[in-house]
Amino acid sequence: MASPALDLSQIIPPQVLTKLAREWLAEDTPNFDPAGVCVGSQEVSAILLCKSPGSVLAGCPFFTAVFTELGCTVDWFYNEGQTLGVEPVTQTAVVKGPARCVLLGERPALNCLARTSGIATRCRGLLGTAQNEHWAGQLAGTRKTTPGFRLAEKYAMLVGGISMHRHDLSGMVMLKDNHVWASGSITQAVRNARSVCGFSSKIEVECRNDKEAREAAKAGADIIMLDNYTPQVVHTSAFSLKQEFPSVLIEASGGITPLSLAQYFSPHVDIISLGSITQGCPVVDFSLKDP
Amino acid sequence: MASPALDLSQIIPPQVLTKLAREWLAEDTPNFDPAGVCVGSQEVSAILLCKSPGSVLAGCPFFTAVFTELGCTVDWFYNEGQTLGVEPVTQTAVVKGPARCVLLGERPALNCLARTSGIATRCRGLLGTAQNEHWAGQLAGTRKTTPGFRLAEKYAMLVGGISMHRHDLSGMVMLKDNHVWASGSITQAVRNARSVCGFSSKIEVECRNDKEAREAAKAGADIIMLDNYTPQVVHTSAFSLKQEFPSVLIEASGGITPLSLAQYFSPHVDIISLGSITQGCPVVDFSLKDP
Amino acid sequence: MASPALDLSQIIPPQVLTKLAREWLAEDTPNFDPAGVCVGSQEVSAILLCKSPGSVLAGCPFFTAVFTELGCTVDWFYNEGQTLGVEPVTQTAVVKGPARCVLLGERPALNCLARTSGIATRCRGLLGTAQNEHWAGQLAGTRKTTPGFRLAEKYAMLVGGISMHRHDLSGMVMLKDNHVWASGSITQAVRNARSVCGFSSKIEVECRNDKEAREAAKAGADIIMLDNYTPQVVHTSAFSLKQEFPSVLIEASGGITPLSLAQYFSPHVDIISLGSITQGCPVVDFSLKDP
Amino acid sequence: MASPALDLSQIIPPQVLTKLAREWLAEDTPNFDPAGVCVGSQEVSAILLCKSPGSVLAGCPFFTAVFTELGCTVDWFYNEGQTLGVEPVTQTAVVKGPARCVLLGERPALNCLARTSGIATRCRGLLGTAQNEHWAGQLAGTRKTTPGFRLAEKYAMLVGGISMHRHDLSGMVMLKDNHVWASGSITQAVRNARSVCGFSSKIEVECRNDKEAREAAKAGADIIMLDNYTPQVVHTSAFSLKQEFPSVLIEASGGITPLSLAQYFSPHVDIISLGSITQGCPVVDFSLKDP
Amino acid sequence: MASPALDLSQIIPPQVLTKLAREWLAEDTPNFDPAGVCVGSQEVSAILLCKSPGSVLAGCPFFTAVFTELGCTVDWFYNEGQTLGVEPVTQTAVVKGPARCVLLGERPALNCLARTSGIATRCRGLLGTAQNEHWAGQLAGTRKTTPGFRLAEKYAMLVGGISMHRHDLSGMVMLKDNHVWASGSITQAVRNARSVCGFSSKIEVECRNDKEAREAAKAGADIIMLDNYTPQVVHTSAFSLKQEFPSVLIEASGGITPLSLAQYFSPHVDIISLGSITQGCPVVDFSLKDP
Amino acid sequence: MASPALDLSQIIPPQVLTKLAREWLAEDTPNFDPAGVCVGSQEVSAILLCKSPGSVLAGCPFFTAVFTELGCTVDWFYNEGQTLGVEPVTQTAVVKGPARCVLLGERPALNCLARTSGIATRCRGLLGTAQNEHWAGQLAGTRKTTPGFRLAEKYAMLVGGISMHRHDLSGMVMLKDNHVWASGSITQAVRNARSVCGFSSKIEVECRNDKEAREAAKAGADIIMLDNYTPQVVHTSAFSLKQEFPSVLIEASGGITPLSLAQYFSPHVDIISLGSITQGCPVVDFSLKDP
Repeated sequence: MASPALDLSQIIPPQVLTKLAREWLAEDTPNFDPAGVCVGSQEVSAILLCKSPGSVLAGCPFFTAVFTELGCTVDWFYNEGQTLGVEPVTQTAVVKGPARCVLLGERPALNCLARTSGIATRCRGLLGTAQNEHWAGQLAGTRKTTPGFRLAEKYAMLVGGISMHRHDLSGMVMLKDNHVWASGSITQAVRNARSVCGFSSKIEVECRNDKEAREAAKAGADIIMLDNYTPQVVHTSAFSLKQEFPSVLIEASGGITPLSLAQYFSPHVDIISLGSITQGCPVVDFSLKDP
Repeated sequence: MASPALDLSQIIPPQVLTKLAREWLAEDTPNFDPAGVCVGSQEVSAILLCKSPGSVLAGCPFFTAVFTELGCTVDWFYNEGQTLGVEPVTQTAVVKGPARCVLLGERPALNCLARTSGIATRCRGLLGTAQNEHWAGQLAGTRKTTPGFRLAEKYAMLVGGISMHRHDLSGMVMLKDNHVWASGSITQAVRNARSVCGFSSKIEVECRNDKEAREAAKAGADIIMLDNYTPQVVHTSAFSLKQEFPSVLIEASGGITPLSLAQYFSPHVDIISLGSITQGCPVVDFSLKDP
Repeated sequence: MASPALDLSQIIPPQVLTKLAREWLAEDTPNFDPAGVCVGSQEVSAILLCKSPGSVLAGCPFFTAVFTELGCTVDWFYNEGQTLGVEPVTQTAVVKGPARCVLLGERPALNCLARTSGIATRCRGLLGTAQNEHWAGQLAGTRKTTPGFRLAEKYAMLVGGISMHRHDLSGMVMLKDNHVWASGSITQAVRNARSVCGFSSKIEVECRNDKEAREAAKAGADIIMLDNYTPQVVHTSAFSLKQEFPSVLIEASGGITPLSLAQYFSPHVDIISLGSITQGCPVVDFSLKDP
Repeated sequence: MASPALDLSQIIPPQVLTKLAREWLAEDTPNFDPAGVCVGSQEVSAILLCKSPGSVLAGCPFFTAVFTELGCTVDWFYNEGQTLGVEPVTQTAVVKGPARCVLLGERPALNCLARTSGIATRCRGLLGTAQNEHWAGQLAGTRKTTPGFRLAEKYAMLVGGISMHRHDLSGMVMLKDNHVWASGSITQAVRNARSVCGFSSKIEVECRNDKEAREAAKAGADIIMLDNYTPQVVHTSAFSLKQEFPSVLIEASGGITPLSLAQYFSPHVDIISLGSITQGCPVVDFSLKDP
Repeated sequence: MASPALDLSQIIPPQVLTKLAREWLAEDTPNFDPAGVCVGSQEVSAILLCKSPGSVLAGCPFFTAVFTELGCTVDWFYNEGQTLGVEPVTQTAVVKGPARCVLLGERPALNCLARTSGIATRCRGLLGTAQNEHWAGQLAGTRKTTPGFRLAEKYAMLVGGISMHRHDLSGMVMLKDNHVWASGSITQAVRNARSVCGFSSKIEVECRNDKEAREAAKAGADIIMLDNYTPQVVHTSAFSLKQEFPSVLIEASGGITPLSLAQYFSPHVDIISLGSITQGCPVVDFSLKDP
Repeated sequence: MASPALDLSQIIPPQVLTKLAREWLAEDTPNFDPAGVCVGSQEVSAILLCKSPGSVLAGCPFFTAVFTELGCTVDWFYNEGQTLGVEPVTQTAVVKGPARCVLLGERPALNCLARTSGIATRCRGLLGTAQNEHWAGQLAGTRKTTPGFRLAEKYAMLVGGISMHRHDLSGMVMLKDNHVWASGSITQAVRNARSVCGFSSKIEVECRNDKEAREAAKAGADIIMLDNYTPQVVHTSAFSLKQEFPSVLIEASGGITPLSLAQYFSPHVDIISLGSITQGCPVVDFSLKDP
């Protein structure tokens, strides 16, 4: 998990924030905002309230970027990644700007913050489970994200203390049965992938059994994914693989839920990834109110 | 709810599908797909499996559009909106095309289908609750959707049998306390809004009590939202409002969950909207496998 | 007509203005501006002159947005919607900024303002006709706008005191003979449309005779369009429809010109729409001059 | 005027047509088309009717491109640039495709064709005036076009037999009083412009009197614009300038209307440009009907 | 060559710079910048060093625009077009801004400046050759530029003292053998082109021999390109063509390299164009260092 | 180097090719192609000739994509990555399609192919140098690519047999002195970076001396860059680092040119990267001719 001292928002380039904020605003107001004529542009301020006690705040840069596009400012009472109060309602930030612009940004900004904070809160909970069990490995998300919203969801994982895993197909190479089958063997698939992705990318191989895992490790895979193994087999396989290939990373994946997670905590497993982090994740209840 | 005989996919213009498919593909492969060299472009077919028994299938046009962009074809074994089998695994469709293209489309297409089917399944369940209680009103979603993914989520509501509610701020006008406060009164706010949105849009007013509701109805609001009322007050207020303004639609909204929903079923309530339809909604488990 | 006290420009979201301004500038200078080297970037000011006496000023937000993109400022001597002076030349605004930037924005900004003011002026004239005849209904535009320029043209209608009518196919549903024919009947078409658009959109039906109009009204249409009726038949049909369906709105449309308009003024007609408002509309003569 | 044997549509690159068609469709259906569910996707055909006898057909490539994007086809009964029949209604083309797609394309396609044909018809009329008066010069349009729609309007000029004049600021350089003033003299302004635009662009200078015109011609301007001259002065100035600078082109511009045009027909004037060609131009009445 | 007193950057419209800067930044950081968390946003300054003595500085507006997008500022110690010092290292500018933003802009900004300065330096060298040989004609580049980067490369030619030649196919018309063949003759091709491009564009014809050149000149071509002539033939052909058609410009092109350039210096040749200006051109070595 | 049996074009997703092709075409023909009217749309074929004997063919997918967008087809006589003939002129492919479309695509397609083949040819030459010297390490490019054209240039490296190195800042993390300075130490910088980029990305550290290199290796860097070392020091440092940290990759970089390259061939150096691969690289001479 990233040190609380690190300002994680520094990994989002300014132009990326601007682009997303514009797209989200255009989605919510494609042409006119007829109600805008009722409120006008007098300066107002609105308080961001959180009604989900004990949530982790995540997504502030996106929230701020939406309002910045509209000529509004946001002052935060909590830091990104901080756990919000346990009282029923926590005043989290104040938004100031022209009345109609505060209303134009309200829904897109809240829709983002509710989801990114929801993911971070879930991640923080899973992290607690791992820490309670003294598991020193790395929890990770997947690419099972909402189309068009991945960047925010991946970032929320990070704020929640979870590894973002590879961002997309252009990052780390992951070889599945299709790649292996078409290449002829795991060995050939890894060789082909390496000849293309070069030294700067890692290669992971999805393995269905120890024979495959051993071939992948020998072929030079950086990470071995034990795919859809039962917890018991994960423990024994990870142990024997680490004995033979101490520098290879072992990832357990496939069908692991928050409930079954603890069963996979092996000292020989480096990474456990869960698609459920970004699927069906509860949102944090945020709203904007007049002060 | 739309008649099963209607082909709801006809409401999505072709160019809208194409645009979304391209954006989702670009998100998942911004530049190279190094693994593509391992699989090549021989023709393969993959089966779309559903492992969430009894789910409602929704989002087929998006799934197909992603693969169409890649030169692949999709043949569906079930219709949009149909309930999939109750067996553990249901073969739902077959995707055919160049191997690397099937893999390029896999994650974006599944990420969409899992979410849209999840929303439709939840909606269908809520609809069943209403039908069991013989409530003849209309369940509806909200604008609490994932930034960038609203169109798919709204469409999934429709497939699930729920009203999509207004799509964005450029559609139906909804007046909140800010609009009222800035205009001076509900009456003036409705008048101002009508002078701008004209006869072709409806106007809804968020009301906190019957006095406001009555003023809004008199001012010409098409829909009165009883905002954050308790169920009991909804029943009595809706009754008396309908007595006085029979042609005005009554919407109950605010803090209504699937669990508390039934308490709001009044014959005088026309619409009940739930933000939870698109928040924290479980996904349907879909995957692509070699046949 | 909107109250003169309302600031109509508040209905245009900032990001919409910015996007249009950028596209128009790119159209007029796709790559280099060789003449820019002759004028350089010294600060200058230029006066916006109007040489069409008695015109209605409309489109200021677009004009300003073009120059804002270029680092220039605009100070207006008249308000949006105001009637300009009757003298041959009226000083309307002053543009200040780097010389080359004033010239870069000149043509796109004038091209917009000349057209939007032209439409507003025509609308104001038609509105006067209606007021003179004491017709209390609503004049309206159509979707017969210039491709790519609709938002500005619709906005100009509003400034001119005319209803914008529906903005696009995603707004109010309008059912034509094709929809009816394919659905089997007007009744079925309205039912199908309602099941999709829900309660938040209105439905209008184009009718060719009273039988159709009556079926549409019974089926739940919000607005009945009497399409291509002669003025005489409009009067009698509107009268009898209103008798039977007092809450249904009646729109007369089809082939109505500024010249024939007055013949359609019936107390039972709520809306009269004219495609000619945005077709062949004279422009207002604006130019930029050194002070 | 271009020879009728030339296929002018060949000057529009395919990707330009595609881009415009997509933008226009997105403007008219930003998200859903609820009415689409009523008509479905059965194959239909619709006849393009023209109800403005004697109009010049212009804009077919744009009309076709809109429908091509939607999977429809268009068969034309007349050629681009041809004068349509004098009978009240002329069947001009047939559009075939899925019913809902024909309706999705109808308004954007007609909105374009009505305007481009309107401009071509006006141009053809002005051309007739020139030919009747045996004036051998070139009529030309200006940059006074609708923002976002210039390409179509410029093309319509060409179909109508008029010169498109420069397309934008990146094309031919035109020097106005601002450029001259900032450069110090006409001579210096032309020199500066030439040093930047090089040999491949022409340079035109707006002149207010013969002294300026003579300086511009001496400085190497390719074209001299006699700006806002009275017709009488145009005749005498053009004559004397041509005597002295036979290879320089003379353009009369500024305040010339279709009514005053003939007064400017001098054998020494090469070009007469009119902003009114694209301002307030009547449209041609086209509609789509079921056969 | 443009006068050193001219500020050539004035030909690049602000919105063009902004658009390019955003695209280049998005190319270099499509999603996250993980290293950004290590440096944070404290204000830093970095010195732009040039390690290619005697280079011509070109491309400052692009370099500045990249950093402006990131909230950084650039102060230049040299002017655009100036020759940098002959010492091994020349401090050229200072960039100030948040540390991570300086690093985000570094590579795109340097990648541009290295190439544009490289082109300007090459051009300045060729210009020196021409001046040494007292050739008064115009050196020119071509359209043989890097896809997507043409605007910067064309601008660099101008800073280097070379004509940019036509920018694209929408500018000056150039007729090749295909055009001639399809039109039937050079005469007909020129006539067809003129009827379309009008008076505001020039027409150049690629000729393979004097017969073609003479036909082109007679047909009204503004520029005759002697394509792939040997130097000797260029001299004699240009002489005889100028005798017969003194006002026609003569361009020598095809296979001319910096080495063979001087052989083409004829007093009767107006333009010599070299594709090599933008092909295989050495870069200037720039880097950013902490002060 | 990738096996010649691998079809490297499989790493470029279809939608990436399409997007680039459209942008390049729009750059070369922003609006009209007046010359198109001279050639029309009759079907023609043109031969792609290479006049640079012994060049490596690279970039075929881009060349083909440009013509595909225009409705043309390309048949290749050589495979991607193949060395073209040693005769002066090699017929490389044939392009077929409408005449004007062949001309619209000609320049963008050739501009790409000339550059990508140039880079591949240079890479192949450097690879030969390494093979002759029996150096088993990996040559690599850098991010010193042309803004907007990186994807094509990186791909060309791969075809030429060179590693593409990291694609952008969102890929492998590279830590420079700024990151180290701001984090406090190399150890802390690596720790911070790892906490953000997770297990799926590699981390490289630019080191100026062995002390730094040792700290970086201990801190967990995957790759140590010996930055701007002299060849002699590279040999001794790489040897001692490999002794101590056998699994760490060693990259030599900074100021290495094709001429000095061989001096860096050490058995203990895994990677040598050269910015010059994409800077000042000669192009391959391709042209399109009628058959």
